[in-house]
Amino acid sequence: LASSPPPATEQETATLPGIFLRHRSEINVALRDGLSSNHVGLYDMLRYYMGWVDTNGAPWTATEGKALRPTLCLLACEATGGSVRQSMPAAVALEFIHNFSLIHDDIQDRDETRHHRATLWAIWGVPKAMVAGNALRVVADTCLERLVDEGIEIDQALKVIGLLTEAYLEMIEGQFLDLSYEGRPDIGMDDYLEMISRKTGALIRCSVTMGAALGTRNEATLATLHKFGRSLGYAFQIRDDYLGVWGEEVTTGKPVGADIRRKKNSFPVVYTMSAASHRDREILRAIYRKEELSSKDVETVLDIMDRMNVSESANRLAADHCDAALEALNMAEIDPDIRREAEALVNFLVVRQH
Amino acid sequence: LASSPPPATEQETATLPGIFLRHRSEINVALRDGLSSNHVGLYDMLRYYMGWVDTNGAPWTATEGKALRPTLCLLACEATGGSVRQSMPAAVALEFIHNFSLIHDDIQDRDETRHHRATLWAIWGVPKAMVAGNALRVVADTCLERLVDEGIEIDQALKVIGLLTEAYLEMIEGQFLDLSYEGRPDIGMDDYLEMISRKTGALIRCSVTMGAALGTRNEATLATLHKFGRSLGYAFQIRDDYLGVWGEEVTTGKPVGADIRRKKNSFPVVYTMSAASHRDREILRAIYRKEELSSKDVETVLDIMDRMNVSESANRLAADHCDAALEALNMAEIDPDIRREAEALVNFLVVRQH
Repeated sequence: LASSPPPATEQETATLPGIFLRHRSEINVALRDGLSSNHVGLYDMLRYYMGWVDTNGAPWTATEGKALRPTLCLLACEATGGSVRQSMPAAVALEFIHNFSLIHDDIQDRDETRHHRATLWAIWGVPKAMVAGNALRVVADTCLERLVDEGIEIDQALKVIGLLTEAYLEMIEGQFLDLSYEGRPDIGMDDYLEMISRKTGALIRCSVTMGAALGTRNEATLATLHKFGRSLGYAFQIRDDYLGVWGEEVTTGKPVGADIRRKKNSFPVVYTMSAASHRDREILRAIYRKEELSSKDVETVLDIMDRMNVSESANRLAADHCDAALEALNMAEIDPDIRREAEALVNFLVVRQH
Repeated sequence: LASSPPPATEQETATLPGIFLRHRSEINVALRDGLSSNHVGLYDMLRYYMGWVDTNGAPWTATEGKALRPTLCLLACEATGGSVRQSMPAAVALEFIHNFSLIHDDIQDRDETRHHRATLWAIWGVPKAMVAGNALRVVADTCLERLVDEGIEIDQALKVIGLLTEAYLEMIEGQFLDLSYEGRPDIGMDDYLEMISRKTGALIRCSVTMGAALGTRNEATLATLHKFGRSLGYAFQIRDDYLGVWGEEVTTGKPVGADIRRKKNSFPVVYTMSAASHRDREILRAIYRKEELSSKDVETVLDIMDRMNVSESANRLAADHCDAALEALNMAEIDPDIRREAEALVNFLVVRQH
């Protein structure tokens, strides 16, 4: 379970739109401030998970994630005339909530590695990993309380706290739906879209709406950016599902076909099940009834998907939601420079390789 | 794992001080309102855990808990001139947070029953039980947001939200300390007291301070009631630890010596380890080094505790904290009737049998 340095992904980093890098150093400082407690062991686990220390608490530099949620939050705040400094507590709260959910997901899925590093439960056991996840969730709450110190009006702070609570509950409900779907061959596209709009979409949409709510009280602008965030959430997850099947191991950290082997209810499988011929569907059901899938099973599923052009369908659906996001963006009255950055971000999300 | 009706405990209920019963029906209504969502499966799991339905979602009546935390919150609010109706969202939030922590505790301790009923993970598996616990935690947050609808000033609502976040983080840190102590024979009384002041004490103290913060802005009164809550937390947990070893199965749901067999870092064990003779300590260490304790091991530990009068020491320490709580209460300027009720509650907590 020792962590080995991850492979270089400079090529990928180079393609990241500028908006991801613009406030990155401030985001990093704020994240570290949020987890600076000296409390025994617990916070070292969290700092390890964030990629800042090794399992012994010694400094370490892991490849950074994109920090998508903080970036979206700051972008939406700037787009609506707010200040980056004032919205930073919300931005880091979103990243902490996201990581909390990953810590618990790792336990639920029994995943021993994530981003080429051993997961918390794999190192410290399930009980401590559960508690560490719960702690990170509260750290997020304590961050939000700092909004008032940054000069945000008290009613706006309360509104933003409410937005996060609402999104967080939706996320949990989505996780529950996902678990409920496990082993069920009758999940349709509607069920799938409902599930991802909660499980992943809620927090992404909330990243946009929280940032916007800190920048403006204009209800029309807020509604437009809500739509933008909603479409973005779909586009993001459908691309994520694409990468879970067809992504390269060097960039995603998972082998091709990984999500098939894990029997995830992701877009490729749900789509294939719902659109396959009677004969193919019987083959798929027989495979998915197995406790564990062999490499040959994964090959068979991939072959059927190839024949049905499922990867193209995934890309098309992601692109449709991307278009809807861009359309919403077009309706919003925001600074042209920021609009261009937002457009670059949207376009990047559906072509990204990791 | 089928749930059988719990044994009658009418005798116990009869000894419950009046304050536990006074607002009980309103508390029950508010709790059910908080969990009235129709969302698939998830909320049925939570309603099952609260004792309102069986595993199929059909109505069920389990023996009610004491609802200690809501009762303390309402009491503190009334004592400081606040209204029961206005503080009810805070009261139920506390009960939900408490139950959230029990759901996750059950998973961490692999406990298959609690209060004579099968636990969530034992019925629905670990992943769904984790998610259900997380959902209950958010339900608590959504309750708090209703404080403003009840007419609580926005800055007071934000203060109360902050108090809960702070206490919740302390609780999590205490759970982590408890896990870190497992299997360590060198835990002293200071470590123990530090751990319980967080793990259990924080939420009990917060029940009092949240209620008080909704009733008054007088800092002196708030500080006095903070002390009251702090002492109450110690008294409560030390009595709990007493019951975990010497409580009767019919009232606690656990056999005598249960917490010894589970190798819990509870008062009796920590005290015995720290005060035992060299010879007894060696015997204890040999027993605690074992993966699993036999009935004979538990007997041996109980014999040593009997010889050392550990149960008396536990009762004495609980009584000391009870006295400190009563002293703090004496300093607070509150209505005499409510003071009498609070005194009855304190005295009950250290003699209770369950």
